[in-house]
Amino acid sequence: MEIYADNAATTKMSDAAIAVMTDAMKNYYGNPSSLYLKGQRAKEKLEQARLEIADIINAEPREIIFTSGGSEADNQALLTAALLGGKKGKRHVISTAFEHHAILHTLKKLEKNGFEITLLPVHENGIIRLSELEDAMREDTCLVTVMTANNEIGTIQPVSEIGALCRKKGILFHTDAVQAVGHIPIDVKAQSIDMLSASAHKFHGPKGTGFLYCRRGIALSNLIEGGAQERGKRAGTENLPAIMGMAAALRESAEGMEAHNAHKAAVRDHLIRGLSQIPHSALNGDPSERLSGNVNFSFEGIEGESLLILLDRRGICASSGSACTSGSLDPSHVLLSIGRIHDVAHGSLRLTIGEDITLEQADYIIKNVKEVVEYLRSFSPVWRDLMSGKREFILK
Amino acid sequence: MEIYADNAATTKMSDAAIAVMTDAMKNYYGNPSSLYLKGQRAKEKLEQARLEIADIINAEPREIIFTSGGSEADNQALLTAALLGGKKGKRHVISTAFEHHAILHTLKKLEKNGFEITLLPVHENGIIRLSELEDAMREDTCLVTVMTANNEIGTIQPVSEIGALCRKKGILFHTDAVQAVGHIPIDVKAQSIDMLSASAHKFHGPKGTGFLYCRRGIALSNLIEGGAQERGKRAGTENLPAIMGMAAALRESAEGMEAHNAHKAAVRDHLIRGLSQIPHSALNGDPSERLSGNVNFSFEGIEGESLLILLDRRGICASSGSACTSGSLDPSHVLLSIGRIHDVAHGSLRLTIGEDITLEQADYIIKNVKEVVEYLRSFSPVWRDLMSGKREFILK
Repeated sequence: MEIYADNAATTKMSDAAIAVMTDAMKNYYGNPSSLYLKGQRAKEKLEQARLEIADIINAEPREIIFTSGGSEADNQALLTAALLGGKKGKRHVISTAFEHHAILHTLKKLEKNGFEITLLPVHENGIIRLSELEDAMREDTCLVTVMTANNEIGTIQPVSEIGALCRKKGILFHTDAVQAVGHIPIDVKAQSIDMLSASAHKFHGPKGTGFLYCRRGIALSNLIEGGAQERGKRAGTENLPAIMGMAAALRESAEGMEAHNAHKAAVRDHLIRGLSQIPHSALNGDPSERLSGNVNFSFEGIEGESLLILLDRRGICASSGSACTSGSLDPSHVLLSIGRIHDVAHGSLRLTIGEDITLEQADYIIKNVKEVVEYLRSFSPVWRDLMSGKREFILK
Repeated sequence: MEIYADNAATTKMSDAAIAVMTDAMKNYYGNPSSLYLKGQRAKEKLEQARLEIADIINAEPREIIFTSGGSEADNQALLTAALLGGKKGKRHVISTAFEHHAILHTLKKLEKNGFEITLLPVHENGIIRLSELEDAMREDTCLVTVMTANNEIGTIQPVSEIGALCRKKGILFHTDAVQAVGHIPIDVKAQSIDMLSASAHKFHGPKGTGFLYCRRGIALSNLIEGGAQERGKRAGTENLPAIMGMAAALRESAEGMEAHNAHKAAVRDHLIRGLSQIPHSALNGDPSERLSGNVNFSFEGIEGESLLILLDRRGICASSGSACTSGSLDPSHVLLSIGRIHDVAHGSLRLTIGEDITLEQADYIIKNVKEVVEYLRSFSPVWRDLMSGKREFILK
């Protein structure tokens, strides 16, 4: 059996998106900035994609700027807010301890440039508390950036409430919605979102493309300078085939969202019930306020890396955390932020299922995770110490 | 007849590149940063593409950083040089008056941050003089950035000599080679190039991808912060399908380069001879030190925009300058930099031919440009003034 359960890392492109993109590569190669018909036809396709995407998140087309993906969008949003804030002498930014590195590393850069950063705790359930957000807000706060859904544990923040609070206080609100767009409903107007980042390859679209929503009236700063594309806000020849593929994928995701979520949530809960039977294990993150496709467990006494390799041999693609940080030996900052100590954070498993998952596959996953965890524990010195009482269990 | 003669704006993807990319979208969607086999197979493909591309410009694989295109690569190169220079108190940059806006606009940004910029003249033939470059070099010069081949008039700079001079003086040398890679031989080692920008869609590869070559030993700065991809120098999930498509396209371009250039140069010279017969016209840029695919003419007494629209109706896709600036009503800064005054710069035509151009097509272009220029002049008030002697001809 082959099961791809790492959809938070990247998704398989939908057939429709591949078809649209291949057609565009062949037939809409004209430069959208060109005067001739071949260019203007490309331009029309570009604006049609912009309109469709805007529509799905209840934005206006002119509020959508196409980028090379989520990381670029995150960087540009934070740069914009920092420049706007700096002009008014406002150099305080509020975020959370478990944002994606595209946010955290950019915040580090801002810190070096005189900004002060407050990282809100996300508590054991992986969700910020509004009262703590309100308490953290200051006269000189220029930005609140909180991800809509976490990439490792899938927990969903109270975005509408955060947006309303920021709007009331006159503070810009950006959300990294890379894991959310195409998966849960987003309404930038109703949720009072000022800026939002999205990435196509997280919803069965192509890699290398994404978008930044930026509310009309906010003067966006360029991250990439050059030609006058994207109303002068993002230079570089428009990646039309990928943008058309992204629009097709998002349309499909939006149309199927309700059914997909119902199905995925049922399978997710089945997986959670099954994996919970493994002794000394724990679900990471809130059990219900999480993406329908996300299951994240810690198993005491094992190394996550060995678990992944052995699961791969049994046909299961999973991960221990973000693919973006897999090169690092540090334990996941997300798991640390919800209070998992190093040892337990290391022995973690993230399963992010797609809408094509079956209950039969879920059972196969449960069976194999159980077996592999048991096998790894059979020769784990940590497990031996835990069992002999030399070391105390953290997960009861 | 349909003739696409705007290959400097963008090229049609090669069938091979489309096939490679479509296959990758279907079969190599794994995240290259993932542990499992599907991810590792993607990683292998990524590194194979890096090796192939590095090989073609005589770089080492680790010296190639994949970006979303030429503009991003230009921005990152200049940011890197500025940060390295700033640390040593070196805040002087030398460039040319006719660089792409990805360079010129970034230099403007640096100027606002305390850098001093010297733009070398490119003279009537569109080529800088080495003596003037040497004269401009100062103790505090941290970077020389000169494009390999110009995007509007196709003139080729003496890159090896510039490189040697910079190396001798200990100054970083970056070249925007977006119009050159895949079209003329590049050897970063022999040419003493420290950093080089390239874009796939200029050599029949996909849009939305390119690369920055950065010589080993130069500490590259991030433009996009986030995950640890590209050895921590460029965040964002690797756009593997596009990168594989780029490698395939570059390989094809490199293999066919000599034959393509011989053919294109012959057709180019045929076009130049034919269009020169139009009275009061002039070729822009050096007649021989230019890309084999580039023909750029000014015709006195007409508007370039009308010329393009009428040529489009006759099946010819051409441009008046860079597609990146087509939104602007200003005359081309490139043509101004070689001494064309506003009126004449406005009435210009850029034809950038591909290797599939035929002599028959070239004759069709010549015939139609002649007819359309004549037609436009027949009701041009400027032309009337020129003919009646009220105004003096600039182009004899």
